[in-house]
Amino acid sequence: MGNGDRIVGAIDIGGTKTALGLVGEDGKWLARETFPTPFEAWEGCFSFCCERMEALLARCGIRAEDLEGVGINVPGMYDYVQDRLIRAPYAGWRDIRVREYFRNRLRISRVYADNDVNSCALAECRFGHGRQYGSFFWMTVSTGIGGAVVEGGRLIRGRHNLAGEIGHVKTAYGTEARACACGARGCLEAHASGSAIGKEVRMRCGRNKRFAEAFEGTGFSADAAGCAALARGGNRAAARIYEEAGLYLARGIAAAANLLDPEAVFLGGGVAEALDLMFPSITCHLSDYAVADLAKIPILHTGLGYDAALFGAAALVFEAQAAEP
Amino acid sequence: MGNGDRIVGAIDIGGTKTALGLVGEDGKWLARETFPTPFEAWEGCFSFCCERMEALLARCGIRAEDLEGVGINVPGMYDYVQDRLIRAPYAGWRDIRVREYFRNRLRISRVYADNDVNSCALAECRFGHGRQYGSFFWMTVSTGIGGAVVEGGRLIRGRHNLAGEIGHVKTAYGTEARACACGARGCLEAHASGSAIGKEVRMRCGRNKRFAEAFEGTGFSADAAGCAALARGGNRAAARIYEEAGLYLARGIAAAANLLDPEAVFLGGGVAEALDLMFPSITCHLSDYAVADLAKIPILHTGLGYDAALFGAAALVFEAQAAEP
Repeated sequence: MGNGDRIVGAIDIGGTKTALGLVGEDGKWLARETFPTPFEAWEGCFSFCCERMEALLARCGIRAEDLEGVGINVPGMYDYVQDRLIRAPYAGWRDIRVREYFRNRLRISRVYADNDVNSCALAECRFGHGRQYGSFFWMTVSTGIGGAVVEGGRLIRGRHNLAGEIGHVKTAYGTEARACACGARGCLEAHASGSAIGKEVRMRCGRNKRFAEAFEGTGFSADAAGCAALARGGNRAAARIYEEAGLYLARGIAAAANLLDPEAVFLGGGVAEALDLMFPSITCHLSDYAVADLAKIPILHTGLGYDAALFGAAALVFEAQAAEP
Repeated sequence: MGNGDRIVGAIDIGGTKTALGLVGEDGKWLARETFPTPFEAWEGCFSFCCERMEALLARCGIRAEDLEGVGINVPGMYDYVQDRLIRAPYAGWRDIRVREYFRNRLRISRVYADNDVNSCALAECRFGHGRQYGSFFWMTVSTGIGGAVVEGGRLIRGRHNLAGEIGHVKTAYGTEARACACGARGCLEAHASGSAIGKEVRMRCGRNKRFAEAFEGTGFSADAAGCAALARGGNRAAARIYEEAGLYLARGIAAAANLLDPEAVFLGGGVAEALDLMFPSITCHLSDYAVADLAKIPILHTGLGYDAALFGAAALVFEAQAAEP
């Protein structure tokens, strides 16, 4: 570790697993580890993260006070300004002061937290292909769909830290609109997320015996990932499900392009791994829905893969430092 | 005029009339005048604006070089970065270097230009109620519909100076979607602009004799303004046309709210004068289309009225100065 290297601690508390690590500003990891998220209670989870972070620091011979800071991704809805995890989809995870907890436990003043969608966008901005763009729209297309707005190299959070909520932009109205878990209808998430694609797969399996047999014959699971595998194997019905998801993604992306005129759109998350299956459909339909000059916007897959979120936790620290006077 | 007062020249070249004036940074007008836009050729129009500006300066005893700068609203699509009026809806208005022309003619180095929608948003930000908000979405609802994004007191222009293009966000799909002048279908502008409302009025007059007679009887014109007057007089069919426009405005505003999470939405332009007729419909439908925390966003009428655009031309100068290092 050379003189002047700035090292940051990163913690990504995810839906099934938690990752943590120590990373330099050049994006090189000094150490990292992953474990299943301990979800019993938030105190237990946070405390275990601190223990593991301290063990990592000890192993690398770094003192906590020499870190530039620690960044933490939390699941759920987080108020960035007030430091308040409003709610997360786990029992008892409510009204938690995340920064305060980690600041006190790790005895580090510079602790920053945000949701993993905002963090991924910052990661793309600092460590990914996003470095080539001053402004872009980030989309996480996974079980659900989230988004984030980067403008002038800065994250735009909005009044409630909800800017970029593309998952609930309406991409269908009337009878075409499907019910969303949020209670509304026609949300992009209800038409093109991993859970929406899985639902569609199972619905079509019930109606079409040959389609169901294709899953049984190959052993692929009847969900979004299995459907992608089947489509890649040449199954037209499976390919059509992704083409249809591409239509709705085009509608959502067009709204973001028309309203923000960004330089690019980046997609990450599990369903984005099947971007190749949706790309022709997205670009074809974009010209129907986006203003002419905006329909040619580059639609890019993140280069950070599954590391995006952990890089993002680290990027939170660099973002906060850049904003300091 | 006190010492230290900064005076700015403002020119608003509009679709039917052109306004120009001299204004202090406190928003007080020293002088202003209005004349029908001379549209024969752009050189003639620009030259006449310069003559009138010079006459105004002479009348006020101000030398051009003592102005903080001159701001100009141009109609059509303007590339702010390259100083290029790409196209305007008038014959021969193409590829014009606006700043360069006025800079040379008026012999003032600080000349700034933009379209009137961006300018109106800046006016709201500097001279209007927008001063109370760090971020808001501006909408001009007039013959067409345009929008602009203010974030952190700054205008976000996007890559092609097209950010905020809410008029072409899709608010209907399939058979519900009406054809828009842009060639696409379902654009907000095709459902809720002055020309869309006028079209709807005339279509219903053709189908409903009593509705047509209501216009003839009152002498109101069969357009958006006449329909508003009729609705205010208690005509239910006329009121319903505005309620329906409110539904589509809610869809467009919801997309902007979900993607930007701004602190407020401001509406200006002729159709926005009928905001009272649409307000209950907009707020009622917003809860169907916007994320729960965002559906309560304040929807406000601009306080600047028809002066918004001329204030906006002046605001272009203050914006550019604020951005200077």
